[in-house]
Order: sequence, then structure tokens, then C-alpha cells
Amino acid sequence: MIQKGVFITFEGPEGAGKTTVIKELYKRMEEQGLKVILTREPGGIRIAEKIREIILDNDHQEMDAKTEALLYAAARRQHLVEKVMPALKDGMIVLCDRFVDSSLAYQGHARGLGIDEVLSINEFAISDTMPDLTVFFDINPEQGLARIAANDKREENRLDNESIHFHQNVYEGYQELIRRYPERIQSTDASLSKEQVTENVWKIICSQLIK
Amino acid sequence: MIQKGVFITFEGPEGAGKTTVIKELYKRMEEQGLKVILTREPGGIRIAEKIREIILDNDHQEMDAKTEALLYAAARRQHLVEKVMPALKDGMIVLCDRFVDSSLAYQGHARGLGIDEVLSINEFAISDTMPDLTVFFDINPEQGLARIAANDKREENRLDNESIHFHQNVYEGYQELIRRYPERIQSTDASLSKEQVTENVWKIICSQLIK
Repeated sequence: MIQKGVFITFEGPEGAGKTTVIKELYKRMEEQGLKVILTREPGGIRIAEKIREIILDNDHQEMDAKTEALLYAAARRQHLVEKVMPALKDGMIVLCDRFVDSSLAYQGHARGLGIDEVLSINEFAISDTMPDLTVFFDINPEQGLARIAANDKREENRLDNESIHFHQNVYEGYQELIRRYPERIQSTDASLSKEQVTENVWKIICSQLIK
Repeated sequence: MIQKGVFITFEGPEGAGKTTVIKELYKRMEEQGLKVILTREPGGIRIAEKIREIILDNDHQEMDAKTEALLYAAARRQHLVEKVMPALKDGMIVLCDRFVDSSLAYQGHARGLGIDEVLSINEFAISDTMPDLTVFFDINPEQGLARIAANDKREENRLDNESIHFHQNVYEGYQELIRRYPERIQSTDASLSKEQVTENVWKIICSQLIK
């Protein structure tokens, strides 16, 4: 059924439960014998890892929002070239946890740089490798942050210090992107149980692959 | 005579003798009581320094040309925000050794990314802080590289391994920029003695400041 690679990205506010669900989807695809990789930026690509270290360093409070957006685009480019593009060329399904829409929602909308402005540097970065499908994990920011507070084992980084107001702006940014790209971005209710969300996203992906 | 800051950048192939001449110009301006700073990217700005380390690391042979261009733009942004913009706001003369035209000539033209494409990410990076004046040190690439081979004490970095063909392309890129920006970019013969070049550039700058 699949003639060429398929590029699927997953987006949403913090604490939307993306990571757990994507792992489950990946397992199912493997069990069905599909050629699939699961990745997220910087994805073990050493140049991209080094760039992310600069972005996330808690010390770098003086970082300008445009510098941050350019660094994300640079890390994205290198991860894309070394990992995503070769897999797509090999006809694989690529599941990527966050991609260009994160920059558009976080830097473009929430930091106020402008979605179009951040899109322009990302178009440079990704050439024409836009996702075939993007699944948006829809959860309100308060609920997402409450989940993180209860369960998160991650080390705190520079972005965790943002206010609830920032996370609400991120959510608004995603809503704007859903209006802009109604065909590419499919929304799923992420307030449901992990099992139910997995089922629903699986259906979205299947209908995309069968198209 | 000077009501607001003046932003002057210096460009040219490797070995054109820019650095020596700019120091001399800076000294003269200080002696005349002008408020002036001399800088070059990354300019001691720690985030920009860390970005440049990634770019120039000899190990990073896998770095994609677009990643490199985005990293230069990111370092440029941070240097601009922390050092250049505050000085211009204070009404100072800012002398900057290389700026946006280097990216347009090196990444845009010589690496084949396209001058317009690299300009687009740099327009994002610099907002509207384009130089008031850019002095191009005109020397043919072979002559420039021969000077470096004879005198250079710099440590070798990833860019020094480029072929003469690459440096010729950089030179061609600058010629294209001079055609595009005939008012902003003023050319000076850099094959002359340092004293003569300093004299000529001084005259170019004075006529700009008096405008």
C-alpha cells in the first residue's frame, strides 16, 4: 500500500501524553511488519544535540527569541538531513515527536515573533519536507501542566520556567495552525485515557496511509 | 555632525588585510574623540561564542550547508542584540569586521544556497539593522590566500580546508553583492600597502559620515 515514505509528526502542549502514545503506535506498526522509525529532535544527531544544549541551558537567560528560533531551525535541519530524509527515501514511515509546528506555535505565536516570520526560516530549513500528516494532541494547557507536575521525571530546563500565560499562548498558536492547515493537521482529544487516545490516533493514521 | 549611531561593516576574501586596517581606523577615530567600538562576530557574546564553536569544529564534517547558514544567522542575532544595537542606540560608531554580506557571499553564493534564500533568514536575524556603509576589501583570492600562507598565525579551522575554487566563488559572490547594493557597498583596492588602504578607507568613511 505504501509506495514511498510517510512523514507523520505529533504536536501538542506540554503534558498532552504524546510520547507514551507514539511509543505504542510505533510498537503496533512494527508488529504489523511496517518499516517505521520513531524520532524526535535532536534525535541523537551530535550537531543537533550540541545546538539543543545551547537552547536549553538554564544559564542562557539573555537568549533573544529570534536567536532561539534560528537555533531550533538549525537543529531541525541537521536532524532532517541525517535521519528523516534518508528514512523517507528508504520508503519508511517516520514518526516524529514535535517538528516545525512547535516552532510556529512556541516562537512564532507565543513569543510573538509572528507565525509567518518563523515559517520563513523553517521553510529554508526543511526545504519541501513538510509532514504528510500532523496529529495534534488537544488538551487544555492547565490540564497538561497538572499532569506534568504530578508525573514528570524530566530535569527542569529553561522552557519549564515559562508562565501558564505562555502555555496558553502556545495553545492558541496551535489553534491558528489548525485553521491554516486543516488537511494536514488532524486533532485528537488528548484528555481521554492513553488507550483511547492511542486507538483514535491509530485510526487517523490508518485512514491517512490508505488514502 | 553625527546625530545617531553609524553602523559600518568590512568585508572581503581571506587575507585581504581587513583586521589590521580596521584597528588603525579605530585608533584614529578614538584619537579624534569619536565614540566608537570595534567588534566582530561572535564578539565575546557567550551564546554567540558557543554557536561559533559548533560551526568551526573541525570534527563536524557532516554539517549541512543550511545548518551552517542558520547557525551563523543565530550567532549574528545574539551579537547584534547584545552588542551592536545598544551601541547604535547610544549614538556610537560601530565598526564590525564581517557581517551579513559574508553569509551571502560564503553560504549564499559559494555554497550554492542562493543569495536570496540566505538573505531571507538574515533579514529575520537582523530585523532592519542593515549597515549604513560596507567597505569591501578588493583582492583576488589567490593573492589573499598567499598572504595568509606567509603570515597567518591563526589556528586552522573547518573553513580553512576549502579549495581555491571555493574562495573564487566567494569572490564572485561579493561582486554580485556590489552590483546589488551599489550605494551601501564601497570597494577599495586591498592589494595596496596597509598604509595606503587605511588612507583610502578613511576617506570613504569620512565622506559617509559627512553626508
